Amino acid sequence: MAVELDQSASPILTHDILRWISQEYHDMNGSSFQTLESPPTAAEFAQLVHVSRPVVIKGFQIPALKRWTDDYLQNKLQEQPISVAITPNGHADAIAAGPGGRLFFVEPFVEKVPMEKLLERLNTDQDGDNAPTSYLQSQNGNIYSSRFFESPNDDPSEFGTLREDVPSNIPWVAEALGRNSDAVNLWIGNSKSITSIHSDPYENIYTVIRGRKHFTLLPPCEGWCLRERMYPHAVYDRSDNSNGLSVVPSLDNPQVRWSSVFDPNLPGSLPPEAHPMHITLEAGDTLYLPVGWWHYVKQSGSTTIALNWWYDAEVRGMNWIWLNLLRGSGDMPTGNDETDIR
Amino acid sequence: MAVELDQSASPILTHDILRWISQEYHDMNGSSFQTLESPPTAAEFAQLVHVSRPVVIKGFQIPALKRWTDDYLQNKLQEQPISVAITPNGHADAIAAGPGGRLFFVEPFVEKVPMEKLLERLNTDQDGDNAPTSYLQSQNGNIYSSRFFESPNDDPSEFGTLREDVPSNIPWVAEALGRNSDAVNLWIGNSKSITSIHSDPYENIYTVIRGRKHFTLLPPCEGWCLRERMYPHAVYDRSDNSNGLSVVPSLDNPQVRWSSVFDPNLPGSLPPEAHPMHITLEAGDTLYLPVGWWHYVKQSGSTTIALNWWYDAEVRGMNWIWLNLLRGSGDMPTGNDETDIR
Repeated sequence: MAVELDQSASPILTHDILRWISQEYHDMNGSSFQTLESPPTAAEFAQLVHVSRPVVIKGFQIPALKRWTDDYLQNKLQEQPISVAITPNGHADAIAAGPGGRLFFVEPFVEKVPMEKLLERLNTDQDGDNAPTSYLQSQNGNIYSSRFFESPNDDPSEFGTLREDVPSNIPWVAEALGRNSDAVNLWIGNSKSITSIHSDPYENIYTVIRGRKHFTLLPPCEGWCLRERMYPHAVYDRSDNSNGLSVVPSLDNPQVRWSSVFDPNLPGSLPPEAHPMHITLEAGDTLYLPVGWWHYVKQSGSTTIALNWWYDAEVRGMNWIWLNLLRGSGDMPTGNDETDIR
Repeated sequence: MAVELDQSASPILTHDILRWISQEYHDMNGSSFQTLESPPTAAEFAQLVHVSRPVVIKGFQIPALKRWTDDYLQNKLQEQPISVAITPNGHADAIAAGPGGRLFFVEPFVEKVPMEKLLERLNTDQDGDNAPTSYLQSQNGNIYSSRFFESPNDDPSEFGTLREDVPSNIPWVAEALGRNSDAVNLWIGNSKSITSIHSDPYENIYTVIRGRKHFTLLPPCEGWCLRERMYPHAVYDRSDNSNGLSVVPSLDNPQVRWSSVFDPNLPGSLPPEAHPMHITLEAGDTLYLPVGWWHYVKQSGSTTIALNWWYDAEVRGMNWIWLNLLRGSGDMPTGNDETDIR
């Protein structure tokens, strides 16, 4: 959810052309995905990047997979404060109703808690519970940021003591792309934590350490099916000392472009031209999620832990330009002129 | 010049969108090209394929580079008949005026001559000479075809005795693309031999063995600058025993889609939006010419020898669809309705 593509001046493709591209893409590629029984070589991974379709990779071994029990994590992190996203419904960075019933793009309230407390909350806060949801999803390079490669001592992390369990780089990815990772993130949530549908300008490697992750994916050429609109920006805040969270509009009324599709798995959420793919990752599975692919992510298991490595996408050649053209710019309508968020 | 892209149903992009894509592509990529001092690894080459821009590669060593003197070639091939393209002006597979002054896409007359005779003609037939031009450019996998990999004894070649000097596959290309070559071709011509501007649905590796090759290149997104039109098909034929060649329209009036730009280097041939690149290969140099790039090729030197390896392009993912969309289909006008071939 980091930097945005440059949409300064891209023209609008007609609906007919977008439909033709989507149909042709589906005819040529289908909705299936490849599963590799072991990590690819660098040359094999570079081919996968060129094809730019999701791939499940088995057998990518990192120390975290074997070590990260609750006890281990608590021992390693002790009283270290961890930035946790607090929302009323598990949807961080998502559309929600705010003052006056208007729809906003709402970022979570961020609370700093020790690992022990986070794990305790996740274990007790289950479906059907009305308590706010905690989700560690800071995704700012919370384990390693790109600074780490230039100056390892100048890349502070709340999870510094866990670095020995997580490689800063994946050799077959780094060699295939000719670059180091841009950010490595830790995610810890439970079945109430949801990531709303969006796309990132990164090549993404996503490994599940514990629990299960459920991805709903659409290719970049089906973005037009997701009805992106402009929403005013807001944050959740604790107005008092209670557990209650309220939507507080941001000053200066900044607008955020976001999909109006609340849950792509609800019937009627997507037009018939969309071809969502469903991929479930078990613990130990890794997903290659190519640049520009739309993804909606749920999880199951009382505590679901995952890691992801973002690599800058290739901006040379045509691919970057196509991604920009597919998203277009022009006069994006505001979400509040419509009533059809689904 | 082999198989055509599928343009059965692709919609037409507006001129505004084509101009935006071309400009954006040029802004992001410029008109420069990379030169590698030695062949890339498979992973490095896979990256280059993803970027899909021309690259000059030095130091790709094959036995032909050291061995192929005139004497060696004549000794190896003896009286073996070789298929040679004969044209009045050196333009094989190009637009030319035929009966009634109409323009045709004209294929060459093919004559079978021994290597000794071909080399003698090339050495004596120079610029300013009025004799027909001979150019070995059969490009049908004349050294190896894809059959070679399935059944090496079932891939006859006029140049079978030269195979020991030419690898059937290039290891770093085959590993990067995950496939064997589709065709390996030998080209022998002189400064009168010209290849008219066109694009191929192949990844192409092109190595100059002797002489110099001059490429004029345009990216796939600038194809709209080349004014492709439909031309009736014809072949050159020797109507009598003289040296004269005449344009003979093919039966059933088949139509060929071809660029109306006779020579992209002539002033005024291209609109200002086009950004042609010029690359000269010396003997020992190799060009990676990516799928869909438009190329016009001249040569210098009394005898210019080159080899090329075609590899099928990746049809999975978006790239193939973009190439189809860029070429479009729709109602391509006929070339003879216009008078502006340049």
